[in-house]
Amino acid sequence: TTQVTLVQIDNYGPWTVTPEPRREMDLQTMQSRLFADIAQFVGSRDGYAFFTRFDNMVAVTNGLDDRDHERLQATIRNRYPVTVSLGVSVAERPIDALEDATGRIQAAGSAQDHSRTEVLAGEYVDAPGDDDLSIAHFDVNDATGKYTDQLNEFDSFIRIEQGYAALMKRLREEHGALSFFVGGDNIISICPDMTEADYRATIDHVSEAADVDFKVGVGRGRSAHEAGFAAKHALEDCRYEGTTVEFAAPTAVTR
Amino acid sequence: TTQVTLVQIDNYGPWTVTPEPRREMDLQTMQSRLFADIAQFVGSRDGYAFFTRFDNMVAVTNGLDDRDHERLQATIRNRYPVTVSLGVSVAERPIDALEDATGRIQAAGSAQDHSRTEVLAGEYVDAPGDDDLSIAHFDVNDATGKYTDQLNEFDSFIRIEQGYAALMKRLREEHGALSFFVGGDNIISICPDMTEADYRATIDHVSEAADVDFKVGVGRGRSAHEAGFAAKHALEDCRYEGTTVEFAAPTAVTR
Amino acid sequence: TTQVTLVQIDNYGPWTVTPEPRREMDLQTMQSRLFADIAQFVGSRDGYAFFTRFDNMVAVTNGLDDRDHERLQATIRNRYPVTVSLGVSVAERPIDALEDATGRIQAAGSAQDHSRTEVLAGEYVDAPGDDDLSIAHFDVNDATGKYTDQLNEFDSFIRIEQGYAALMKRLREEHGALSFFVGGDNIISICPDMTEADYRATIDHVSEAADVDFKVGVGRGRSAHEAGFAAKHALEDCRYEGTTVEFAAPTAVTR
Amino acid sequence: TTQVTLVQIDNYGPWTVTPEPRREMDLQTMQSRLFADIAQFVGSRDGYAFFTRFDNMVAVTNGLDDRDHERLQATIRNRYPVTVSLGVSVAERPIDALEDATGRIQAAGSAQDHSRTEVLAGEYVDAPGDDDLSIAHFDVNDATGKYTDQLNEFDSFIRIEQGYAALMKRLREEHGALSFFVGGDNIISICPDMTEADYRATIDHVSEAADVDFKVGVGRGRSAHEAGFAAKHALEDCRYEGTTVEFAAPTAVTR
Ligand SMILES: Nc1nc2c(ncn2[C@@H]2O[C@H](COP(=O)(O)OP(=O)(O)OP(=O)(O)O)[C@@H](O)[C@H]2O)c(=O)[nH]1
Ligand SMILES: Nc1nc2c(ncn2[C@@H]2O[C@H](COP(=O)(O)OP(=O)(O)OP(=O)(O)O)[C@@H](O)[C@H]2O)c(=O)[nH]1
Ligand SMILES: Nc1nc2c(ncn2[C@@H]2O[C@H](COP(=O)(O)OP(=O)(O)OP(=O)(O)O)[C@@H](O)[C@H]2O)c(=O)[nH]1
Ligand SMILES: Nc1nc2c(ncn2[C@@H]2O[C@H](COP(=O)(O)OP(=O)(O)OP(=O)(O)O)[C@@H](O)[C@H]2O)c(=O)[nH]1
Ligand SMILES: [Ca+2]
Ligand SMILES: [Ca+2]
Ligand SMILES: [Ca+2]
Ligand SMILES: [Ca+2]
Repeated sequence: TTQVTLVQIDNYGPWTVTPEPRREMDLQTMQSRLFADIAQFVGSRDGYAFFTRFDNMVAVTNGLDDRDHERLQATIRNRYPVTVSLGVSVAERPIDALEDATGRIQAAGSAQDHSRTEVLAGEYVDAPGDDDLSIAHFDVNDATGKYTDQLNEFDSFIRIEQGYAALMKRLREEHGALSFFVGGDNIISICPDMTEADYRATIDHVSEAADVDFKVGVGRGRSAHEAGFAAKHALEDCRYEGTTVEFAAPTAVTR
Repeated sequence: TTQVTLVQIDNYGPWTVTPEPRREMDLQTMQSRLFADIAQFVGSRDGYAFFTRFDNMVAVTNGLDDRDHERLQATIRNRYPVTVSLGVSVAERPIDALEDATGRIQAAGSAQDHSRTEVLAGEYVDAPGDDDLSIAHFDVNDATGKYTDQLNEFDSFIRIEQGYAALMKRLREEHGALSFFVGGDNIISICPDMTEADYRATIDHVSEAADVDFKVGVGRGRSAHEAGFAAKHALEDCRYEGTTVEFAAPTAVTR
Repeated sequence: TTQVTLVQIDNYGPWTVTPEPRREMDLQTMQSRLFADIAQFVGSRDGYAFFTRFDNMVAVTNGLDDRDHERLQATIRNRYPVTVSLGVSVAERPIDALEDATGRIQAAGSAQDHSRTEVLAGEYVDAPGDDDLSIAHFDVNDATGKYTDQLNEFDSFIRIEQGYAALMKRLREEHGALSFFVGGDNIISICPDMTEADYRATIDHVSEAADVDFKVGVGRGRSAHEAGFAAKHALEDCRYEGTTVEFAAPTAVTR
Repeated sequence: TTQVTLVQIDNYGPWTVTPEPRREMDLQTMQSRLFADIAQFVGSRDGYAFFTRFDNMVAVTNGLDDRDHERLQATIRNRYPVTVSLGVSVAERPIDALEDATGRIQAAGSAQDHSRTEVLAGEYVDAPGDDDLSIAHFDVNDATGKYTDQLNEFDSFIRIEQGYAALMKRLREEHGALSFFVGGDNIISICPDMTEADYRATIDHVSEAADVDFKVGVGRGRSAHEAGFAAKHALEDCRYEGTTVEFAAPTAVTR
């Protein structure tokens, strides 16, 4: 059961060019700080937030209720020149949760409707369970040796990007998972129940389609942090064992 | 003539998992704030910085000298738990500048060599000219109406990502340009001299390969900001005229 | 019942001058961002944090437990070049809580003992009550008309500072309250039970000692935010009624 | 010759309570981040900025011209929910520069006039000299041993505050210097030409009036950073020599 929140900056396109185009680096600074604040707010409550397109950000918010969402909305209003709308929903398949969360915002008006501000519409997990969430942490094998220390940075980046483009598409189409690039050579996917064979097939597909080799650690938990932290430990297991897919042992991870 | 700086976090991979994996949202917060600080430092001196992979960031730094680079390095050391290495170089084709900038850091050691810290190696533009830089600002037509207000956010995002993946690859291979996603449906490319036909061919290629339709504004200038700001105005011209490619009139843009 | 947390940067003095003095504006940036992050972390959980001396910050943390404190400590470690120690305690008189909180850190070693890092020692409120906290929000009458628009900024500032110096001392000595300047002409005091006559006497004392005239709104609540928000509303009542001391009606304030 | 900039948030008082009072910790976060951004902008150009009252901040801006000031104003407009007015002036005595800078903003309207926004009025140093600025860095002797490790934090803070209140007043009245608390036990003063005897008399006065013992390092330079950095080195000399007043040798300090 995944609870997903869509964060959409209200009427942002027009704002960026009114009264005339704004300095790009100011937009970049504003966007990335806004994301950092959301990551910190959600993250310190054990959720995960992803920058996605920056004007639309996706978060996994199991454990956050409507009061928390209201507060996030208020603190942004109080500190930024823009406001945000929030759509929240719950489903087994992550994509279904996001589909519904998006629909709740769309129903209230266009992303560029200047009279639509600070929508807060959603439903929340009501009976949280210990393994509600499944998170996979993908990582490229020896990215440092094969790319970073060998190619110019843009060519390294192209490789990682093409790998990401292939992985995100495949996981979405086959499994309804949501995959996000989180920097370096790392991708975090919010997944439904998937088998080891599913992960292997995914990695093989990407290796063929984009010639990039991933390994993956998979974890479950009550919150994104719990599941994601277990996934990171499983990924460390891949490193030590030299394996490609590792599932975390089903023990609670704290902190 | 493009001056490119590669910013590489020193020994970052090992740091993220020592003594055990760090909370992902703390990494996200730290990375995006580090990028924001670099964007602000470089941007307030009329350069452009891009987040790229976050552990490796690329900046266009015409107008910044070695003293500025030293200072950037020092202010990061004083405020973050990590340090950065900087490689700087100059060339007609942006990719050649980045190739050389990357090589200067690689020559000093691996990105994961814990004894390699705070490399600063570079060469700088010595005779700046009024139209040294060419920047193209690409933007998807009616992304709001076609994607954001219609699809769930992940499916919108996949469209934009696939468009970006196709565009970045094509422009790098055909022209040695460096293209960066800057949020929403926007891509900024650091380009060599290219004709209107080149831009048109690029846009047609992406339309076929990824079924995403871009328009583009192109500007020139002495600094990234000057060129990029002219490109933004040219893009506004596309909007008003309903055209696909616009070049900025060769007038100096200030501010 | 006030729960107070002392946040102390570990071994900060030596760090500021090692290997040689650090750029002052980098220290200022680092300090004020660290404070901002603590204010946001504590504040989004309905506590209050004050910058105090920046190397030592004081927070009112009713509602935050040891897990929250652990997390605050971890997120700072993950994103800053410094770490913090936290001492937490509870008492009727705010100063007694701070005295004990301070003692818990001091017991573990000196603020400049380089081997003392990340102390976390404390006790927490165990049976929270609806009016555990009392907060007074002091504000200078017509500071804009009398100072800001009349004097040069430093002379305005001296007036406010002298008013603050007199107020903080008096409230600490007579009542064991903790008073913090929060910008502009505003002072927030964490108070024990005090009568209207107590507040009046305080304001009269400051008026005589420093020739600065304050009004005050007082609120109670289960959390610093609840009490402080009620105090702000009471202060607005002073404005509308032209009165000097107002107590908030004992109704729960939400949000 | 000191160039001083007054940064005043436009119409801030009304904003803080419209439509109803805003969460205090959001105000604190916003204010301290705004200051941090100004400190970074000014500081990376070798100026100094002080938080003062947060709604009014004072900066020493030798080396920054009107273009830099315009940019600072624009970047704040693009990233914050508030705008700022800037008044700039130059004089031998720092207080005279601030007096004139303040007057330039006051002349354009009240700090709470909602139609007065983004004033930029000033004059700038036109013939910079190598020792234009004089900065004194004051520091309490053994604050850790006498206060931080001994008293509860509020009582330590009261001592430092009373010392600061006495020092700032004395230096302003006798010399027209501007003194700012910068955290811990440190005060930085922007001074006119003063002799060793002047500094000694100041320290003696504060010792008697507030029973707090300072030492001081004094430096000169072309910029605030240069002067302040020399002052920090001179302060280190006090530490090593056990002296109370040290002047930096008149050598250029770089970086
Ligand atoms: N977001 C995120 N990024 C990480 C994490 N761990 C590593 N990275 C990124 O991944 C990059 C590469 O690090 P590694 O994966 O350790 O290096 P590698 O050379 O690929 O080595 P192996 O994966 O061990 O084969 C780093 O620079 C980081 O940007 C993590 O936990 N979260
Ligand atoms: N980085 C950056 N992003 C921008 C800029 N302008 C717009 N955006 C982004 O682009 C998104 C879509 O805005 P628009 O391009 O105006 O909207 P659209 O529906 O595609 O409309 P047209 O482009 O006019 O057809 C916004 O939400 C922003 O995220 C800009 O100057 N810089
Ligand atoms: N921290 C904080 N500062 C505030 C708040 N309200 C106002 N201020 C500060 O106080 C300054 C002066 O605002 P006011 O107190 O409204 O102005 P005034 O001229 O004194 O008017 P009156 O108080 O109504 O007599 C503002 O610039 C802010 O810096 C608040 O709620 N919190
Ligand atoms: N802003 C700023 N604060 C500093 C600087 N150096 C030290 N501090 C602050 O001063 C506090 C006390 O440090 P010290 O002055 O080294 O300690 P002390 O115990 O007083 O020792 P002595 O001054 O050597 O007698 C630190 O916690 C910092 O907050 C500096 O360069 N700038
Ligand atoms: Ca890897
Ligand atoms: Ca568009
Ligand atoms: Ca007031
Ligand atoms: Ca000291």
